[in-house]
Amino acid sequence: MALIVQKFGGTSVATLERIKNVAKRVARFHADGHQIVVVVSAMAGETNRLLGLARELQARPDPRELDVLVSTGEQVTIALTAMALTELGLRARSYTGTQVKILTDDAHTKARILNIDEANLRADLEDGYVVVVAGFQGADASNNITTLGRGGSDTTAVAIAAALKADECQIYTDVDGVYTTDPRIVEEARRLKTITFEEMLEMASLGSKVLQIRSVEFAGKYRVPLRVLSSFEEGGEGTLITFEEGTMMERAIISGIAFNKDEAKITVLGVPDRPGIAYQILGPVADANIDVDMIIQNVGVDGLTDFSFTVHRGDFHKAMEILQQVQSHICAREVLGDDKIAKVSVVGVGMRSHVGIASTAFRALAEEGINIQMISTSEIKISVVIDEKYMELAVRVLHKVFELDQPAESV
Amino acid sequence: MALIVQKFGGTSVATLERIKNVAKRVARFHADGHQIVVVVSAMAGETNRLLGLARELQARPDPRELDVLVSTGEQVTIALTAMALTELGLRARSYTGTQVKILTDDAHTKARILNIDEANLRADLEDGYVVVVAGFQGADASNNITTLGRGGSDTTAVAIAAALKADECQIYTDVDGVYTTDPRIVEEARRLKTITFEEMLEMASLGSKVLQIRSVEFAGKYRVPLRVLSSFEEGGEGTLITFEEGTMMERAIISGIAFNKDEAKITVLGVPDRPGIAYQILGPVADANIDVDMIIQNVGVDGLTDFSFTVHRGDFHKAMEILQQVQSHICAREVLGDDKIAKVSVVGVGMRSHVGIASTAFRALAEEGINIQMISTSEIKISVVIDEKYMELAVRVLHKVFELDQPAESV
Repeated sequence: MALIVQKFGGTSVATLERIKNVAKRVARFHADGHQIVVVVSAMAGETNRLLGLARELQARPDPRELDVLVSTGEQVTIALTAMALTELGLRARSYTGTQVKILTDDAHTKARILNIDEANLRADLEDGYVVVVAGFQGADASNNITTLGRGGSDTTAVAIAAALKADECQIYTDVDGVYTTDPRIVEEARRLKTITFEEMLEMASLGSKVLQIRSVEFAGKYRVPLRVLSSFEEGGEGTLITFEEGTMMERAIISGIAFNKDEAKITVLGVPDRPGIAYQILGPVADANIDVDMIIQNVGVDGLTDFSFTVHRGDFHKAMEILQQVQSHICAREVLGDDKIAKVSVVGVGMRSHVGIASTAFRALAEEGINIQMISTSEIKISVVIDEKYMELAVRVLHKVFELDQPAESV
Repeated sequence: MALIVQKFGGTSVATLERIKNVAKRVARFHADGHQIVVVVSAMAGETNRLLGLARELQARPDPRELDVLVSTGEQVTIALTAMALTELGLRARSYTGTQVKILTDDAHTKARILNIDEANLRADLEDGYVVVVAGFQGADASNNITTLGRGGSDTTAVAIAAALKADECQIYTDVDGVYTTDPRIVEEARRLKTITFEEMLEMASLGSKVLQIRSVEFAGKYRVPLRVLSSFEEGGEGTLITFEEGTMMERAIISGIAFNKDEAKITVLGVPDRPGIAYQILGPVADANIDVDMIIQNVGVDGLTDFSFTVHRGDFHKAMEILQQVQSHICAREVLGDDKIAKVSVVGVGMRSHVGIASTAFRALAEEGINIQMISTSEIKISVVIDEKYMELAVRVLHKVFELDQPAESV
């Protein structure tokens, strides 16, 4: 008998028929003797409908009231899900974030979970109840309703799994697992049976939209075994996110190719190569609440250096304006911007113990005539910035050169 | 400066435009220096939409989960109303029933309010906030969400007014006050400037749908000054429900004519006139959870008596079946039923000190050839049961004979 947290997203509970299917799936796990906590999102479309109402009243809706409003979406789903379970003969009880209570900070619309009082949930589980918890929401210390931001239901599920020391946290989505890359770009992309937590973190941060990155971080921090499964196909084993590299013998060196077109590149040419210059460039950008991703500074020549960084594409014009304003102050020769770039990344814990991964990747790209504009590396990933028109080609080339189309067992 | 609780029902907040109008009205009161608590219902149609979802899942939805579900209706409205107020430059803060906290018993879908913790509301009012509270809902001692049953938002408003010792509780509806009778039946029907609490209670219990009877009872218990106003017309003074009869000189003897077609009549003929017979007849009816309204037993002749009572029309067939089953047991000659009846009532605290009201009413009906089937009286009302086809005629005749079409001042 295991304690399992199962999270179903908005598309999995989009209609009453799908909610009934969720209930049937939960009932089968329950019949196998498992204790089940179900975490659900709002029915697909409901959050946007509520946001639309708010925006008709206020261009920038009051954050506290916005949370009161949109949190009703999940509250509707928990009640309906509990009813569907009860109708199947199970005992079920729903909990809002406030009722649990999922204590968060008071950063409305993007709150962070501070603590979960799991006593009532555990008591209900011991009494044989299926517990249904509203994802995405909590309450601050003053009992104001808060929400965790888009995709926060994943985080709720992981946090509850951590609090209850669950045996597994299952995230049901519209894909059946984590793939070596996007199957829409590379037909031969393969579902991974396992992926390490660190790889998953890189994949998520690099634009693979299977899991919200905060939930992966949370799972890592509390070592919650996390599994991604399809909510529409029965019997699949999905992808398990593990914390062990012990099974390396069976693993590929590289797990996947991630990519995104979410960023834009800004280069400041010919700035004095002196201490504090990076802060003088990035300080005003940070002050404007613009997140910076990759940062590259070359070795200076003749006392001058070039400085490049990437920002979210939505912040590109704002960041360019800021840089043009500080250009003379920092004595830069020129500020260049490019929002037609793509970032492609090779991810895998195996590269820690293998040399030559970077050179293999660079050679493969060069053979296709793809120019690399920026490079950034970590222990388990290599990211390159290229012209966005080559993105799909680069992904296919890298997927093939690292033999990701081959089953892991054969490596 | 007064503390005013203003309640707006579902039709008053049915659309975003109407919510904006509510906000404008509240803002004007606030600008006059008043402290305002706004109590709102779900947007018209929303509660039924949610109930519909529940009933697609369960023929008899789980009551606890039903309350979790339908309470989202008011939660949406409080958030939107607070946003509309904020957009007008006011400070506003919303509260769910749980957040207030409005403590109720645990009778899901028909809970009763036990206590209201008004400390937070009062602190917000002192800080200049308009406080927006969800009607219709509360939480039991275990923090389960409860609802007060249909029309419960009126009760919430009155209960909060009582807890805060508000100067007035204003109920905004789609009519502009309490009328001497329904203007759709009697064109000359007149809005009452005041009505006593006891009269209002009779009017409400007799089918006048302006206020939910529980809220009137609550107002009476805590002596909350209650005013009924139109939410669509500006500047009206509506009808004030008072607790004083001191202004009797200016008052009509009779305040209004109430009526309904909600009931059906059952007569048990020729039952032995012995102790316990009423219980033998009504016991099985009560056991079947059927409410009985009027009960009449005539003086017995030759050791036999006739026994009549009325039930809600929806319970008529069930009640008849029960009576036919017990007929032989109680040695009754015959059981007769009639669901084509109407109850018409003359209501007024003035009749306490005036004789002849009953005879005036009976003569007026007799002159129109309307046969009276049952009569029941209280200190401030006379009700008669008649054939339903004469109902409108009876209402018009009684309205005229008691000069209700004349302004109160001229009496």
